[in-house]
Amino acid sequence: MKPSGVVTLLTDFGLRDPFVGVMHGVILGRFPQARIVDLSHGVEAQCVDEAAFWLERCFSYFPPGTVHVAVVDPEVGTARQALVLASQGHVFVAPDNGLVSRLASLPDAEAFAVDIESVGLGVPSRTFHGRDVFAPLGAELASGRLSPSAVGPRALVRPLPTPLVAVESGELEGRVVSVDHFGNLITDIGRERLRSFARPVLEIQGNEIPFAGTYAEVPEHEALALVSSFDSVEIAVRGGNAATRFGVHRGCPVRIREARPRSK
Amino acid sequence: MKPSGVVTLLTDFGLRDPFVGVMHGVILGRFPQARIVDLSHGVEAQCVDEAAFWLERCFSYFPPGTVHVAVVDPEVGTARQALVLASQGHVFVAPDNGLVSRLASLPDAEAFAVDIESVGLGVPSRTFHGRDVFAPLGAELASGRLSPSAVGPRALVRPLPTPLVAVESGELEGRVVSVDHFGNLITDIGRERLRSFARPVLEIQGNEIPFAGTYAEVPEHEALALVSSFDSVEIAVRGGNAATRFGVHRGCPVRIREARPRSK
Amino acid sequence: MKPSGVVTLLTDFGLRDPFVGVMHGVILGRFPQARIVDLSHGVEAQCVDEAAFWLERCFSYFPPGTVHVAVVDPEVGTARQALVLASQGHVFVAPDNGLVSRLASLPDAEAFAVDIESVGLGVPSRTFHGRDVFAPLGAELASGRLSPSAVGPRALVRPLPTPLVAVESGELEGRVVSVDHFGNLITDIGRERLRSFARPVLEIQGNEIPFAGTYAEVPEHEALALVSSFDSVEIAVRGGNAATRFGVHRGCPVRIREARPRSK
Repeated sequence: MKPSGVVTLLTDFGLRDPFVGVMHGVILGRFPQARIVDLSHGVEAQCVDEAAFWLERCFSYFPPGTVHVAVVDPEVGTARQALVLASQGHVFVAPDNGLVSRLASLPDAEAFAVDIESVGLGVPSRTFHGRDVFAPLGAELASGRLSPSAVGPRALVRPLPTPLVAVESGELEGRVVSVDHFGNLITDIGRERLRSFARPVLEIQGNEIPFAGTYAEVPEHEALALVSSFDSVEIAVRGGNAATRFGVHRGCPVRIREARPRSK
Repeated sequence: MKPSGVVTLLTDFGLRDPFVGVMHGVILGRFPQARIVDLSHGVEAQCVDEAAFWLERCFSYFPPGTVHVAVVDPEVGTARQALVLASQGHVFVAPDNGLVSRLASLPDAEAFAVDIESVGLGVPSRTFHGRDVFAPLGAELASGRLSPSAVGPRALVRPLPTPLVAVESGELEGRVVSVDHFGNLITDIGRERLRSFARPVLEIQGNEIPFAGTYAEVPEHEALALVSSFDSVEIAVRGGNAATRFGVHRGCPVRIREARPRSK
Repeated sequence: MKPSGVVTLLTDFGLRDPFVGVMHGVILGRFPQARIVDLSHGVEAQCVDEAAFWLERCFSYFPPGTVHVAVVDPEVGTARQALVLASQGHVFVAPDNGLVSRLASLPDAEAFAVDIESVGLGVPSRTFHGRDVFAPLGAELASGRLSPSAVGPRALVRPLPTPLVAVESGELEGRVVSVDHFGNLITDIGRERLRSFARPVLEIQGNEIPFAGTYAEVPEHEALALVSSFDSVEIAVRGGNAATRFGVHRGCPVRIREARPRSK
């Protein structure tokens, strides 16, 4: 892999505090030519599955050879491993808590457990490995001075605790994995899952919602389900806020089934 | 126009989700030397007039040859055009919904309707043209590989739906076009409009507010009207929050008139 | 000092409005090679002491030769000075309101009062010196065209209004100087202050909180005090929000004392 020089950061740190800025500083100190992109720092605090979802859905919009540093890390300071994963021409750096588990299941994926001493990182703080472990690793990998296989031995990757989509008697159940800035509800149900339905309809909190192609296809203030631009099922309200309308948070179950034949 | 290599982004996407980060990725994939500036992603959702205001007030602080990508796009996925506008040595890329209409009325402005197929962009998603149309266009324009006039035929630009300032019997009516982070109320009344008043006073929600030169000229917790650093009339409370004090939101009407002569 | 080309920005401007973006534009217009890092724009509005705390705790994570532009400026538009401070191989640009007073007390620190006319900045607006004074100064210093001692005469630096830590009969009193995104309470009590205690315990709002090494050392939803990754005392709740749990805001007093011997 030839590094592109791009380093992305994905965390649940928010942008209010200087935590993300300091990570930029650490990266630029080691690799002044880095072009650093804040993928998102708005992952819900400690929600590994939301970060895992966005990382998988977003990485391919960056140039090949990009290093993606992802830190949602409830177990920081414990013995949990730091991982480097190479897959699809990209490199991922993250704690071993499921964050990169979907990417690890891609056919060409290779994961390595970071040996912190042998890569020369020094003793990290016990609460901010984003700054002390993951940012420096990202800089070294992006500069080309360190290769993924040189960080430590091959590793098995811990899976995410819950399966993402369950199927049952012709119905599909998924969850709201992210509520976006507009109040759109992003589910973990991929576009390809819709193929088995002739005329799918979506159910959330007792509401039945029809599918459409884009927001402007339904009247103002009406709800629709659609395939999002990241190829997963999304629930929206045109010119409105679906999260508020349906009182829904991250984690809420969503079902897809065939529309019932209309009675006369 | 010689591109400066700078690309600005102005959207209503917020910074919680990875939408803006992915736009950065798309731009860097096409033009690795781009220096991308997030002008603002905090425009109120789908408020084209707020974005239009800030774009007009801010662009000149960037080097000549900058490409400004502005995406507030309630009609995404419909037949509305994408525009490229060249004016004042800068280039603007936006949906044709009024966002660049003020800039289009400048004497040297030239607008072009983007022919998506002929510029080689591929089929965009139906809900995220920021990523699929506007970011790639911005990258191509900023790299110098594409010139504004090469994106498609000359175009007429759709105006904004409402006029910004109405004048009536010696009084001036404008609106709060943006409420800033400090609760300051930014109006669409330009500095030049004040010239016709000898001793102007401002009225908002039944409150009469005197003009001053800067915040620290009035006592702590007192309200003032002033000419903002972006040359439009602003209402502030020293050391406080004018939006909270007056219970005012975007869109609230504001009047300016002569101060009444004081009775003895 | 050899400039690193890195410019950091620390303000209370928030990220909703285009104020920070415009500062980036001004810097890139004067120094196109600048690598600009947003250290934080989430300082509480007009809270100079929060900004001063973070600036002192964060600067050393950036490469030597970095220019740090810090703007929390309640007195903008008045006669308060603009300062340039050189210390520890870094350069700081800020209003003279206490923001850089801690850095000014370091042994090698040299402070200079900016003579706006002689550095060729033109007449600034009366409300946005971040854009009109501090950003251009930062760009000129980072480019190497201007040296700290060339901005104007040597200056005395105004101190912060309140002392940060008071000591009294074996107890230590400090304050919550920042509440972070996770609801962790960051105090201004440095790690070195703990040395005088054999078995320290922390008290906040009548709650007694034990010290631990990292979040994961206490049970889920339990409170702990710890030395933060920025070497000051922090109060956290594992998997929870300490600010909400204890109803605490910035400025709340915090005491550290010896744990009482346990009675039988």
